[in-house]
Amino acid sequence: MARAAVGRNRWVYNFGAGKADGRGDQKALLGGKGAGLAEMTLIGLPVPAGFTLTTTSCESYLKAGGKWPAGLDADVRAAVKKLERTTGKRLGDARDPLLVSVRSGAARSMPGMMETILNLGLNDASVEGLAAVSGNRRFAYDSYRRFITMYGATAMGVERHQFDAAFDLIKEEVTRLRLGRPAGEKVLDTDVNGDELVRLVEVFKNIYRQAVGQDFPQDPLDQLHGAIEAVFRSWNADKAVTYRRVEHITDLNGTAVNVVQMVFGNMGDDSGTGVCFTRDPSTGERVFYGDLLINAQGEDVVAGIRTPIPLGQLRALMPELYDQLEAVRVMLEVHYKDMQDLEFTIERGKLYMLQCRSGKRSPAATFKIAVDQAMQGVIAAGEAKRLVRKKHLPARYAKAASKPIISKREAVARIAPRDIERLFYPVIDPALPSTELQLRRLCEGINAVPGAAAGRVAFTAAEAERRAQSGETVILVRKETSPEDVGGMHAAAGILTATGGKTSHAAVVARGWGKCCIVGCDALNINEHERTLAVNGRMLREGDALTLDGTSGQVYEGLLDLVRPTAPAEFETLLKWCDELRRLKVRTNADTPEDARRAVAFGAEGIGLCRTEHMFFATRERQLAIQEMIVAESRAQRVAALDKLLPYQREDFVGIFQAMDGKPVTIRLIDPPLHEFVPKTREQAEALSRVTGVRVEHILQRSEQLHEANPMLGHRGCRLCITYPEILEMQTRAIIEAGAECAKRGVKVLPEIMIPLTMDAGEMRILADQVRATAKSVLTQLGSKLKYLVGTMIEIPRAALLADQVAQSAEFFSFGTNDLTQMTLGLSRDDAGRFLPDYVDEAKAGVFPADPFQSLDAAGVGMLVEMACRKGRAARKDLKLGVCGEHGGDPDSIHFFHAVGLDYVSCSPYRVPIARLVAAQAAMELAEKPARGARAAKRRPKPGARPQSTPSKAKRRSR
Amino acid sequence: MARAAVGRNRWVYNFGAGKADGRGDQKALLGGKGAGLAEMTLIGLPVPAGFTLTTTSCESYLKAGGKWPAGLDADVRAAVKKLERTTGKRLGDARDPLLVSVRSGAARSMPGMMETILNLGLNDASVEGLAAVSGNRRFAYDSYRRFITMYGATAMGVERHQFDAAFDLIKEEVTRLRLGRPAGEKVLDTDVNGDELVRLVEVFKNIYRQAVGQDFPQDPLDQLHGAIEAVFRSWNADKAVTYRRVEHITDLNGTAVNVVQMVFGNMGDDSGTGVCFTRDPSTGERVFYGDLLINAQGEDVVAGIRTPIPLGQLRALMPELYDQLEAVRVMLEVHYKDMQDLEFTIERGKLYMLQCRSGKRSPAATFKIAVDQAMQGVIAAGEAKRLVRKKHLPARYAKAASKPIISKREAVARIAPRDIERLFYPVIDPALPSTELQLRRLCEGINAVPGAAAGRVAFTAAEAERRAQSGETVILVRKETSPEDVGGMHAAAGILTATGGKTSHAAVVARGWGKCCIVGCDALNINEHERTLAVNGRMLREGDALTLDGTSGQVYEGLLDLVRPTAPAEFETLLKWCDELRRLKVRTNADTPEDARRAVAFGAEGIGLCRTEHMFFATRERQLAIQEMIVAESRAQRVAALDKLLPYQREDFVGIFQAMDGKPVTIRLIDPPLHEFVPKTREQAEALSRVTGVRVEHILQRSEQLHEANPMLGHRGCRLCITYPEILEMQTRAIIEAGAECAKRGVKVLPEIMIPLTMDAGEMRILADQVRATAKSVLTQLGSKLKYLVGTMIEIPRAALLADQVAQSAEFFSFGTNDLTQMTLGLSRDDAGRFLPDYVDEAKAGVFPADPFQSLDAAGVGMLVEMACRKGRAARKDLKLGVCGEHGGDPDSIHFFHAVGLDYVSCSPYRVPIARLVAAQAAMELAEKPARGARAAKRRPKPGARPQSTPSKAKRRSR
Repeated sequence: MARAAVGRNRWVYNFGAGKADGRGDQKALLGGKGAGLAEMTLIGLPVPAGFTLTTTSCESYLKAGGKWPAGLDADVRAAVKKLERTTGKRLGDARDPLLVSVRSGAARSMPGMMETILNLGLNDASVEGLAAVSGNRRFAYDSYRRFITMYGATAMGVERHQFDAAFDLIKEEVTRLRLGRPAGEKVLDTDVNGDELVRLVEVFKNIYRQAVGQDFPQDPLDQLHGAIEAVFRSWNADKAVTYRRVEHITDLNGTAVNVVQMVFGNMGDDSGTGVCFTRDPSTGERVFYGDLLINAQGEDVVAGIRTPIPLGQLRALMPELYDQLEAVRVMLEVHYKDMQDLEFTIERGKLYMLQCRSGKRSPAATFKIAVDQAMQGVIAAGEAKRLVRKKHLPARYAKAASKPIISKREAVARIAPRDIERLFYPVIDPALPSTELQLRRLCEGINAVPGAAAGRVAFTAAEAERRAQSGETVILVRKETSPEDVGGMHAAAGILTATGGKTSHAAVVARGWGKCCIVGCDALNINEHERTLAVNGRMLREGDALTLDGTSGQVYEGLLDLVRPTAPAEFETLLKWCDELRRLKVRTNADTPEDARRAVAFGAEGIGLCRTEHMFFATRERQLAIQEMIVAESRAQRVAALDKLLPYQREDFVGIFQAMDGKPVTIRLIDPPLHEFVPKTREQAEALSRVTGVRVEHILQRSEQLHEANPMLGHRGCRLCITYPEILEMQTRAIIEAGAECAKRGVKVLPEIMIPLTMDAGEMRILADQVRATAKSVLTQLGSKLKYLVGTMIEIPRAALLADQVAQSAEFFSFGTNDLTQMTLGLSRDDAGRFLPDYVDEAKAGVFPADPFQSLDAAGVGMLVEMACRKGRAARKDLKLGVCGEHGGDPDSIHFFHAVGLDYVSCSPYRVPIARLVAAQAAMELAEKPARGARAAKRRPKPGARPQSTPSKAKRRSR
Repeated sequence: MARAAVGRNRWVYNFGAGKADGRGDQKALLGGKGAGLAEMTLIGLPVPAGFTLTTTSCESYLKAGGKWPAGLDADVRAAVKKLERTTGKRLGDARDPLLVSVRSGAARSMPGMMETILNLGLNDASVEGLAAVSGNRRFAYDSYRRFITMYGATAMGVERHQFDAAFDLIKEEVTRLRLGRPAGEKVLDTDVNGDELVRLVEVFKNIYRQAVGQDFPQDPLDQLHGAIEAVFRSWNADKAVTYRRVEHITDLNGTAVNVVQMVFGNMGDDSGTGVCFTRDPSTGERVFYGDLLINAQGEDVVAGIRTPIPLGQLRALMPELYDQLEAVRVMLEVHYKDMQDLEFTIERGKLYMLQCRSGKRSPAATFKIAVDQAMQGVIAAGEAKRLVRKKHLPARYAKAASKPIISKREAVARIAPRDIERLFYPVIDPALPSTELQLRRLCEGINAVPGAAAGRVAFTAAEAERRAQSGETVILVRKETSPEDVGGMHAAAGILTATGGKTSHAAVVARGWGKCCIVGCDALNINEHERTLAVNGRMLREGDALTLDGTSGQVYEGLLDLVRPTAPAEFETLLKWCDELRRLKVRTNADTPEDARRAVAFGAEGIGLCRTEHMFFATRERQLAIQEMIVAESRAQRVAALDKLLPYQREDFVGIFQAMDGKPVTIRLIDPPLHEFVPKTREQAEALSRVTGVRVEHILQRSEQLHEANPMLGHRGCRLCITYPEILEMQTRAIIEAGAECAKRGVKVLPEIMIPLTMDAGEMRILADQVRATAKSVLTQLGSKLKYLVGTMIEIPRAALLADQVAQSAEFFSFGTNDLTQMTLGLSRDDAGRFLPDYVDEAKAGVFPADPFQSLDAAGVGMLVEMACRKGRAARKDLKLGVCGEHGGDPDSIHFFHAVGLDYVSCSPYRVPIARLVAAQAAMELAEKPARGARAAKRRPKPGARPQSTPSKAKRRSR
């Protein structure tokens, strides 16, 4: 191109004839499409010539309120001149016109913007030139009418159905008449002849004039000007803006525009157009995979008007061309080191590559491709040699093509956490017609835990358990859930609540189980008493069928078919590679032997959080015993009730220790406020009264007494053990006795006893001393020995601030980042739903980049975590550090935890593989820039990103 | 004394004949009494000889389970020998025996321990020696029977009434018979003659033998041994242990024992005993003040058996002795630089000083004495010269005695915050007989705000207002209070609640007004519906009389007489001195012009916290308007409701600005969660519905909707303004319009607009920008100019951690240490009452030295405050720093705030003088040890302590 004047921006980048001004890594400037075209040109692939208007030109245009920035017009004119020189053709030439396509192309694929205008450059004169050169007047006018349609509809806002209606009229009235076809028999586009198309073009130009108020532009530069502006403007189309808002895309300010010489796949049977993948995107197999339409233009493929033929048939039809394409396949995969999605056109036997980008793939294929690419070549060595011999493949590619193209590290780096999630959750059968989904859709809630579930509605936990026992698949529907519902929640296949957010009780518990869960669905109107559910005008009763899509948050009426993806063998291979790469251990949060076993199967290396209080809800007897303890009127009564709980707890711990078989198990002492356990209704109080002999009035009074204004900051956690040391003693006894029993059976055991909600070193010392004294006395009684640790949660800001003091009596810290976030930010996660969305929504306050309960607030809460790690380790060199909050399973947060030097993260069983992956990625990343330490994690550029795609940080978070 | 063997402790310190082993500053070792005796001896005052067993000897004895530590017995025997040499008499001498008194004496005055045993050394032989030497057999046997009584009852646990009964019998049956007095006429002790006393002694010895199981010991060393052990043991008497627990005395481990030669004030009319003060303890006047009994022993004074004569009469009776005593007075005050409380005895015309200590004084006297001592001498120069001439006063004292004995700084240093408190609160007339108080006592609650109030019971705020308007004095009695009660609380003279702690709503609001308040009185059984109050078996109705003593927490039935102390002129003088010394400014928390004016009168230099929401409750119209705003269904409706509030707010601000007349006024934007404002009952909802036209159901639903699980961490503070920016706009407009109006009237105004509950710099920026934009637009509209600041509360840990970022858009920080404490410690102050006492109680967990809501947790919350100050000032050099939490009026916390460099503290109007005092003391202290900075404040040794008293840190806190 002509050099841009000194001192102003360069707006346009040319490519063609093996040369390109831009490169593949200039996506931000040239958009994905433009960068791909430049790169393919540079590699030596057959790419039609053209030029790309930069994203900055769009940005400047929009900022100036729709004015072309200085120099852009000149740059475009110069680029057109250059393109005319390269191609030897001129725009608007009445003999052999240059035609171009105009396409938008932002740095990231982005629906909602204007797609494509083809055949630009045609006018009333040049259409005749095209007819002459192609020797096909019908083709020329067909191209013209397509151009008018696209320009009119896509760029100028003419309603497309006006053109369609006119075309239908020609087909129905003129062509049918000419062909003598009976009504009811279909007339195809191809049935319309040249003359008819000439007439149609006149009609289209009239439609255009009526709608736009101007004649259809005849000067190709005017056409180009209009098309470019239309692309620019489409950046701010509603759909595009909404998409960027939803996907949290904030770092892009405009789209590039690609102007490329037209090539025609519809020039006869030696022409065609196709889309292919360098590997099978469904299975990941190493085969060339694609579709092709002979004698058709690209838009016909997209429109699905004609049925394409499989790529393999090209080998028979045009063997040389197939070999050439195969060579392109090899070159691109070797070059980009990833499976590619290609678009090509064959014009009269000549291949043109129109686009290449990283190919979308199924969950299973993601793993197979990554592992295959790290284990074997793109094609067999012999095949590579053959392509070289035939001069399709440059010799320099031959060797690379038959060897692994990526390292194991690169394979690990390119897996995204979402790729793993997608492997495990059942989904609604993608084959279901979208119209059926539309019809059955009831409402939408917050997608708390992904996956789908279909079953029968139950409105209470008890009913859910009853139905599940009788073999039904159950959907538990509640206003909100509480610890008492845990049994029913466990029995259900899916959980749906009217209130709460992603960290509500329902969400947290369900996530722990990997159970489909939708929360905060405020359209639900549940009448628990009547056992009915009114929702958007529909009324459901207990036992009616419901399907939840936890991935999208959609709720459907009826039982939809579900399918469950299966993990390929390569999944295990890849995770083993992760295990070799990571430093961070991965534990799980598990309260039962089943959970523990499931997590071990997923690769958990220990339990980071075993919540003892969940055990209290497991059976009616246990519930009664804990309630009896709470309403006790004296220490003696309390101890008696605790004695009843002791065997249950011991038995649970034995089960968990056995399941973990020598792996460390962190057991948290009782944590929730006592009022969560006590009877709320008179009937419940009466039941308790019958068992305990305590007066009903006293029970209700005690319940009332336990009510708190701010239970989150109330009498809970280790404060309970300060008030009632006998609880700590019972729990310690149960743990130690269980440990001793396992040791006797030859099962190795490493219990880590964890004090929750510590706020002070003195408090920690008192309780740790008490645990150790109790343990010592139990072990002396039993004549046993047992290694165990005593440590604490760090979940109160003060404990983090004074971590050096706390570490004096704590052998480990486990960061309870849920509560630490609540207190550091002064945010109740139960209540934040009312205003926190405004804080995360960039269109409103946009204060936080993500929900701080999902992704750790590195700046604030992270500062406390970092401080506590540093101070804690300064006071106790071998202090074990972990995290057991929800953030332990969040990718961004795991990067942070790795960077600050934690020993492990703990997360729900289903997130263990994700944590293994991200821990490996974090280790690789930090190894690359070790100097930056924890700060690096806060502004990490692109974990788990595929080479060609650069998802924004915000986007990754939403995975 | 004999030297203690090398390598072991010295257990005994001698004094006498102008020499002493110990000194006045050895209180910890010798106890207050022992140190005083040693010091007086060293000064040259006439002190009887004796010796002191150290507090460590007691500690060792108790630690060893009641065994005398090695060497103690030898030391005591050696000290006895030395005392015998000094006095020229021997214990048990049958001719001229040495008698001694044995007294306990800890480092701090401490009720509950054994007081005194007199006349030790008397036995059946030496009593005759005493008779011979004194020439008074009756006196000798009277002394003997007193000794047996004291030794038996005080040391050996014989019930005192047995001795009393025997004495009565002698008086009634023998003496009455001998004197021939009729029944009903009183027989005095002095009526009993020598023979009768001899018989009585025999009876007493029998009583002793019966009760103790041994003969009354005849060997004086056995007696001494027993008396010393009794004193040692009394350290652990229930009453003493309880006292130490209540007063948080933990640094003392034993009492000293003083053994002193007996002198007798009952040896005739040239003998006597007295107690005096070096100044008038009630008024503080510079006069010698005291009482004296002629021919009596010390215990007679204490027992109040005979009426003493004023000290002045001694001048006429024994002029030389009076002059001698006057000289002692001068010497001691000059020496100790404080008003002294003296005990003396005159034995046959010779003066002996038995004790001296810092004298207790009235609130008014405290200030008068401190100021007088800093302004003038102890006595006039002429009088001093006269005493020197008469050789009573050593010449070296003459000059010092007629000049100020302390500096202004010392005067300021010795005032305790409590001295100021006591000046302002009415108290129950101290003249009321304690029996009456006993009878009227109903129950006891938590003493939230000191002072007393007597009035008629009202059970609702409305009733309280009604009764107050009709001229009654009202006591508002509620289960708990809420912001809606504020009108009634204000109208009441005192507030009594059944629930809540010292930082409950009732306590905080009442403290702001300095209004007597007792909270957490759980004996109250309030039936609001029936308008009755059942308490410990009594039933009160609305209108019944009640008296509260907010200082002690006692509640009495009926209207008790109250008296109000008056502040002397010296109070103002002293505070002016404070103002010269302090750096820290003192502002006040005030929501109304009246509060503001009151605070200015107390010396407030600005308003540090004006809570705008309290204004919303002031009248029914305002309440309706704010409720209308909350239930509004659209932004337009909300704005309309806010428009109604605007004039009220503007008017309030005009009033406050005028009251403050140019002093800075920090106005906090709306802070509490909206549900605090909405109607809770159907009636209230109906009232609102009538005004607004909003459906009752909608109002109730909105109220339900606003309910929060943890309102403290919920939708409040600036989060409301993020959701409803129109609230911020209305409030800013009201402030700026009020400011402009004042400016027009020539009133200087400096509003500081404060954003509450900020958690993030981005949030702060958004809101600050909005305030500034609104202000600018209002000022442009009005064509006015106004200087104002925009800043924020720092009350969320995250804001403190990221203070450098927050300071980018905040021109000032005001630490909201109430909430900052709640969040940093994860403690709800409303709920902490259930367990926090265990954390503060040293006998239980003893984690915190004081309630962190009363006295700043310097280690944890203080670290955040310090960090925020440092980071904030680093980002903005002229950042204004203050505190407006409850801690702003707490002495220990003020020391901390001074040390970290705040610009001001803000507290309730009544605490302004206290803050002025403590700010001065903090400045003096830090100037003494500037290097230690903030750390110094955390372990401050003794602020506000008088020279002789060293109250523990814990004790100071309880003031």
